[in-house]
Amino acid sequence: MKRIALDMDEVLADVYAKLLIYFERDLGWQPKWEDYAGKKLYQLEGAQHLRKYLHARGFFGDLKVMANSQMVVQELQAHYEVFIVTAAQEFPNSLIDKYEWLEVHFPFIHWRNFVMCGDKSIIQADYMIDDHVRNLRNFQGTCLLYTASHNIHNTDFIRVNDWLEVRRFFQQELAKEGKTL
Amino acid sequence: MKRIALDMDEVLADVYAKLLIYFERDLGWQPKWEDYAGKKLYQLEGAQHLRKYLHARGFFGDLKVMANSQMVVQELQAHYEVFIVTAAQEFPNSLIDKYEWLEVHFPFIHWRNFVMCGDKSIIQADYMIDDHVRNLRNFQGTCLLYTASHNIHNTDFIRVNDWLEVRRFFQQELAKEGKTL
Repeated sequence: MKRIALDMDEVLADVYAKLLIYFERDLGWQPKWEDYAGKKLYQLEGAQHLRKYLHARGFFGDLKVMANSQMVVQELQAHYEVFIVTAAQEFPNSLIDKYEWLEVHFPFIHWRNFVMCGDKSIIQADYMIDDHVRNLRNFQGTCLLYTASHNIHNTDFIRVNDWLEVRRFFQQELAKEGKTL
Repeated sequence: MKRIALDMDEVLADVYAKLLIYFERDLGWQPKWEDYAGKKLYQLEGAQHLRKYLHARGFFGDLKVMANSQMVVQELQAHYEVFIVTAAQEFPNSLIDKYEWLEVHFPFIHWRNFVMCGDKSIIQADYMIDDHVRNLRNFQGTCLLYTASHNIHNTDFIRVNDWLEVRRFFQQELAKEGKTL
């Protein structure tokens, strides 16, 4: 069975939805997508401190699930080994938050398939779905760039804008082998 | 630079030294190496419950460091990228314990090189040092089996009995390229 290495933040878990709440609370206005298109939210003026919230215990524990991700991941498991590969090490408090979040929202993925790492170049799989260009650059398999504000100008990878596009991509992959998702 | 994937438990961190203390406390006698040679300590009669202690927060936080491991790992870093690859996911409480333990005892290894996983077959590196045959079986690079009671009968891999033997192995590897450790 081929393997898919699946990122968490901004791919399965909606970090920005939560950061936008903190942004509005702290800065008094709610930025629109156009305001941070092409960059990270905390690169906006006065928002640099937002990144500190990522270090707090609990931050990653109650993030919203990206639309349709649960359904599509479960479908993919019929044909692929799905591994969660998350760069959690910069935020040690996120380790247990992320583990528990996965158990709640993706109970059909076994803990054996959870990987918390720092540098994803150590990962060996057939597909990687990630919003960070730096992770995909060092990957030897097929790369899918999951759209996030900071990567919209990149044209080096196959782009997926949402989970229905992820599903469509793998439907096409499976169709080459005469299979259906 | 070639990469070494380095296991923690029973390779860098002495789990058995701590389990033996619990064993004696709970069962009233201290087993010798011969008593559990060829198996795991908690496979001894009446000791099955010891495995439960591994789930407790803190268990992995104060383990002793294996003799000479710090010195040799630091030497290896001059020639190799050293990644810590630990199967922590069975014990979610161990995630933060292991992270903190590494920061205390191996501060010269960057957190980017910490990998907490379940199934090590996702790891891509040139060398793997591990005490579990199942981890080495799925590895495509060069395998070093670090001696532990449960693996003494295995003859499928290059065996290292301690960190001075690990050093000797890499001295020989480097000598092939005209380098010294």
